[in-house]
Amino acid sequence: MKVYVSVDLPDDLAGRIKKYAEVVGKDRAEEADAVLCFNIDRELLLRMRRLKFIQVTTAGLDHLPWEDIPPNVTVAGNAGSNAAPVAEFAVALLLTAYKKILHYNAKMKGGDYSRDVEVPPLEGRKVAVLGLGEIGARVARALAALGASVYGFSRTPKEGPWRFTNKLEEALAGASAAVSALPLTKYTRGMIKYEHLTLMAEDAVFVNVGRAEVVDKEAVARILRERPRFVYASDVWWGRNDFGKDADIIGMPNVIATPWIAGGYGSAEIRRKMLEEAVENLIRWLRGDAPKNIARREDFV
Amino acid sequence: MKVYVSVDLPDDLAGRIKKYAEVVGKDRAEEADAVLCFNIDRELLLRMRRLKFIQVTTAGLDHLPWEDIPPNVTVAGNAGSNAAPVAEFAVALLLTAYKKILHYNAKMKGGDYSRDVEVPPLEGRKVAVLGLGEIGARVARALAALGASVYGFSRTPKEGPWRFTNKLEEALAGASAAVSALPLTKYTRGMIKYEHLTLMAEDAVFVNVGRAEVVDKEAVARILRERPRFVYASDVWWGRNDFGKDADIIGMPNVIATPWIAGGYGSAEIRRKMLEEAVENLIRWLRGDAPKNIARREDFV
Repeated sequence: MKVYVSVDLPDDLAGRIKKYAEVVGKDRAEEADAVLCFNIDRELLLRMRRLKFIQVTTAGLDHLPWEDIPPNVTVAGNAGSNAAPVAEFAVALLLTAYKKILHYNAKMKGGDYSRDVEVPPLEGRKVAVLGLGEIGARVARALAALGASVYGFSRTPKEGPWRFTNKLEEALAGASAAVSALPLTKYTRGMIKYEHLTLMAEDAVFVNVGRAEVVDKEAVARILRERPRFVYASDVWWGRNDFGKDADIIGMPNVIATPWIAGGYGSAEIRRKMLEEAVENLIRWLRGDAPKNIARREDFV
Repeated sequence: MKVYVSVDLPDDLAGRIKKYAEVVGKDRAEEADAVLCFNIDRELLLRMRRLKFIQVTTAGLDHLPWEDIPPNVTVAGNAGSNAAPVAEFAVALLLTAYKKILHYNAKMKGGDYSRDVEVPPLEGRKVAVLGLGEIGARVARALAALGASVYGFSRTPKEGPWRFTNKLEEALAGASAAVSALPLTKYTRGMIKYEHLTLMAEDAVFVNVGRAEVVDKEAVARILRERPRFVYASDVWWGRNDFGKDADIIGMPNVIATPWIAGGYGSAEIRRKMLEEAVENLIRWLRGDAPKNIARREDFV
């Protein structure tokens, strides 16, 4: 078996793969049975006639050239490998916004010690967690531990310290906060529209640590203009790593913005862990064991 | 029985007391068997010869004139009445600091999208929770739900999702973060010194939602000067409501500051709940039932 590794892999991790397969470079990619990559080039794909398995290093799979991946090629993602820190980050964004930390810290630094804005309790308040994968489930458990009344939304029922619903409207109606940890698929793209955001409380906090494109950009801009107390706190943006494309929304006073740092982009330690887990999963396939995180092709094409 | 109510009480709550006792004003305070107050005046105390019970509306009891309270007078505090929102606020301060939200949000607003500071995971990291009352226990459970390795410190052992210790050094050694939810007593005043703070990680976050005076002010100033990556994130200050007295520390770049808003001062809803619980506890005493949160006089004098 031959594996084409297109990501920069530390020697020890490359060594683990070499116990089960020959590792080849780009010049011999056409011979590869499997590939370990962040993404894969369309042109290259067409030349990889022996390809049976693609192991992606990222949690999301929406950036792959799905139209050009033959249906007989198995694609495995890396969901869960960064779930803990991304969930932590989601709770951080939610509480920073909900507890008015930015507002009061700026005032304190300027010598204004007045208490001009209410700081509401979260206990007993409805919070929607959209997406109950490893990230969403972790967010939901942390918020439940703080006493929030959590509504968990996903397409398939999951048990946990939340009230399950597969209806977006039910999850968001009257919610004081929402966290989107949804993957981007053909089903979730643009799923959250203006009508959904208006169902939330007037001063609600909407947190996004999944993919920006799940939420309609114009809907976000409109609700932020119409409701000055509504807060959009996000680590992910429609322009992906080209944040300047979203500078209009990022600059709004009721937006809290971070540059896609919750997971691997924010920490070498997390990137290392993601590579480790991707390599372990690739090795499962090489050994003939069942890999985790097999993509559902029909979610994307 | 007569109760002197020195706090501004909504009619419905005053009505609850009146089912069990006569409510008297300041002019007849000397006739009172019990008092419901935020604090009590020394001079007045000396004239209240029939006084047997003091119900305080605050969670902390450190502000009372303990030297002048006769030993035969029972004092009840209001711990727990604001525990949920204060615990939420502690987690908010911790995660805001730990995840570098202020740093990156400010950069994003200014059009600088570079990732110049690492955002570490909290999962598996040691976090010390100092004080395992209702606030500390809630903080510990939320952090444990996020996967942190929680060390719980208090004088009496308590069970929960933490490793218990009654040694401050053991709780703080190597910790990535600490949350102080300790009450201020004669035992905890100035308890956390420079030597303790130096035991923590170089880039640790120290959160205080209990009382500022538990931590030595000079120790905080010194560690913040010596360790630019150390963060002190606090809602409570040595000058109490006179925040200008701490402007020197509040103004430091590695400080996140809020003006004592985690509990009752931050929210009318929380203030209302605190009054409700104080009234219920007073009524327990009036009915001859056992009130909650009886103070230990020896903690203060």
